[in-house]
Amino acid sequence: MEKQKMQINGERLKKTIEAFADFGRTENNGVTRLALSDTDIKGRRHFQSECEKLGMTVVYDDMGNMYATLPGVDNNQLPVVVGSHLDSVKKGGRFDGVLGVLTGLEIVRTIVHNDIKPQVPVVVANITNEEGARFEPAMMSSGVISGKFDKATMLQKTDTEGMTFREALKNSGFEGEAKNRLKDAAAFLELHIEQGPVLESESLQIGVVEGVVGMVNYEVEITGESNHAGTTPMAMRRDALFAANNLIAEIREKMNKLDDELVYTIGRINISPNIHTVIPNKVLFTIEARHQDSETIRQVEEIIQELTTSPGKEKCEVQITKQWDRDTVWFNENLVNRVEKSAKNSGYSYKRMVSGAGHDAQFIATYIPTAMIFVPSINGKSHSEDELTPWEDCENGVNIMLQTVLDLVINEA
Amino acid sequence: MEKQKMQINGERLKKTIEAFADFGRTENNGVTRLALSDTDIKGRRHFQSECEKLGMTVVYDDMGNMYATLPGVDNNQLPVVVGSHLDSVKKGGRFDGVLGVLTGLEIVRTIVHNDIKPQVPVVVANITNEEGARFEPAMMSSGVISGKFDKATMLQKTDTEGMTFREALKNSGFEGEAKNRLKDAAAFLELHIEQGPVLESESLQIGVVEGVVGMVNYEVEITGESNHAGTTPMAMRRDALFAANNLIAEIREKMNKLDDELVYTIGRINISPNIHTVIPNKVLFTIEARHQDSETIRQVEEIIQELTTSPGKEKCEVQITKQWDRDTVWFNENLVNRVEKSAKNSGYSYKRMVSGAGHDAQFIATYIPTAMIFVPSINGKSHSEDELTPWEDCENGVNIMLQTVLDLVINEA
Repeated sequence: MEKQKMQINGERLKKTIEAFADFGRTENNGVTRLALSDTDIKGRRHFQSECEKLGMTVVYDDMGNMYATLPGVDNNQLPVVVGSHLDSVKKGGRFDGVLGVLTGLEIVRTIVHNDIKPQVPVVVANITNEEGARFEPAMMSSGVISGKFDKATMLQKTDTEGMTFREALKNSGFEGEAKNRLKDAAAFLELHIEQGPVLESESLQIGVVEGVVGMVNYEVEITGESNHAGTTPMAMRRDALFAANNLIAEIREKMNKLDDELVYTIGRINISPNIHTVIPNKVLFTIEARHQDSETIRQVEEIIQELTTSPGKEKCEVQITKQWDRDTVWFNENLVNRVEKSAKNSGYSYKRMVSGAGHDAQFIATYIPTAMIFVPSINGKSHSEDELTPWEDCENGVNIMLQTVLDLVINEA
Repeated sequence: MEKQKMQINGERLKKTIEAFADFGRTENNGVTRLALSDTDIKGRRHFQSECEKLGMTVVYDDMGNMYATLPGVDNNQLPVVVGSHLDSVKKGGRFDGVLGVLTGLEIVRTIVHNDIKPQVPVVVANITNEEGARFEPAMMSSGVISGKFDKATMLQKTDTEGMTFREALKNSGFEGEAKNRLKDAAAFLELHIEQGPVLESESLQIGVVEGVVGMVNYEVEITGESNHAGTTPMAMRRDALFAANNLIAEIREKMNKLDDELVYTIGRINISPNIHTVIPNKVLFTIEARHQDSETIRQVEEIIQELTTSPGKEKCEVQITKQWDRDTVWFNENLVNRVEKSAKNSGYSYKRMVSGAGHDAQFIATYIPTAMIFVPSINGKSHSEDELTPWEDCENGVNIMLQTVLDLVINEA
């Protein structure tokens, strides 16, 4: 069969995804499959056994990352890797992460069942603890193998029960050797649900992901004075909440004048003493902002820094603390173009876009040519039992991945 | 001695207040004396014994309210009552409430030591659980004896340990009979710290309290949609916090155009899910507003009701719930004038003012002629270990109370 005519088996893909959701299915048809939990371990064993049925060899590295390898004609050449993660957040969905791993499985099934001999090895990878929902931080293991995080520190991370990641990994049976780490590859390709509403709202089938946006995270703490709500005239107050409200309005007014693609969120607010008859003396709120251009992020930081001298402080003190930031990660242009070509050739509607969410791919991109494919998320929902990507969209995405992989592993006659 | 020359003993008053602060003194020189706690019980016994030393008779009513009576020449006439409360909030101050009860004690001491025979009985009252800090609501027992609260309901109120008010009262030894309740009196007079900054800031010694301001309490609940902070474009959000930010700004802009004496507070905000990378889907905040004029309160309520149709809702739903309100209570004009006359005659600086805080006097005022005297609170602090009223101000206030009481209980020659 001509490779551009080859298609994955949509029915089989759907069944595989549905079956996998049994590992941790919640009553509302979501999934709780925390990293290295019993549920995750069962899912990992199932994944390994399905890979082995296809003649793949499965190894683990020292972070519990799993690599299932389908040999190529020339096994001295660098492999093509398709991967994502099998863990989920608590009460998450059936697609986030697992879809990318099962994409790899479906592609190998398609290759094997079509009796195709790839020139180079094809690896399907499951990266441990992407969510960071059991052990913080997110993207822990791609962070370790890419040198972003210190392994010893990560091993000491504990879950809410006080169990360390080290213990959980040892008990899981998936602790392997450091020599098995993903060291080099021709490509790392990750298919993922968008986790946002853009593709659906623009009626597009495929997102050709050019990179992951950079972000900054700040905390703003406002200190005023608590007094009795009934006896303190307005003019004599130092109300931390009123100050916070002014500053948030100022942030919004200025941020909204920056680039349209900037997203910023004030997600957490804690106020003290939080009693309805007492003037608040302390408000702490977070701001996070994401944009692909570092100049826009710089402007964001300027706006936040200006709050300390804002006239809207209402006689309160304002303290600004930068928590952390990360630069925009741009994926490999050649690979992004190949994904785009696959989408175009297959006749799917698509757009080039950047990811607003973080993914293992952004760490791996620092040392391996990387690209990502997005499929639509209904209502943009993710990290929620309501997470949904129509089966047809899943199938389309996996077909694009298939074309991209075939493009890389088969020499044209 | 001519009664207008008579003075209380400032040194003795100071010692009495200091000694009383030993019942529950905190490490920062505040007081924790929750209603009917062991500490409160010890304080009550001490108060009773000091009253009995002066020849007073002490009885309790069915809410544990204590009434110490100094007989008059004619005990068939209505008594003059001076009272307040001995209980405190957790980590409260040495003055709130207790100053008003000890004022009564000091006045009786002065009367007795000056060998004066009052025409009518003088009663010093300690009203149980004014603060509501152990058993909600505040002003529980004045509420019951004035018919505002249902006694059976109040008896069932529990503290954080699950003990009912009924049990605590029974165990305290201060449960008396309903027939002892304060039923009628010529006057109920309460001296209290201002709990606000007005007297101090205007360098005044005495507040002649004309009444207690009315207030309204609302909850505003805003429902939007939670989504991923990185992947949801600004234009597609239904951010409940941004909606709250707009609505709070709208409230402030409109409220600030109302009367200068209006006070309003947004003291409590709860947001959900309160995670820095997630767009908030729910914000609940309280508004309370106080003003002496019902027309101003009506305008406040109009402003709050208008929020449901505000253009600043950011595609969120807004639900407004009125929690409760109370009308302004005006004290007895004749008594207020007598207090003012005492202040004027004594040469103290004073102003007529309304109380922004609630007091037992406001409930008792519904059936007994009532007035209050305020003394300054340094920095307006109350319900805090920092609560402070200079000794001289305490003494001045008690002298005004003495003059007012003498004015009522002694027939001019």
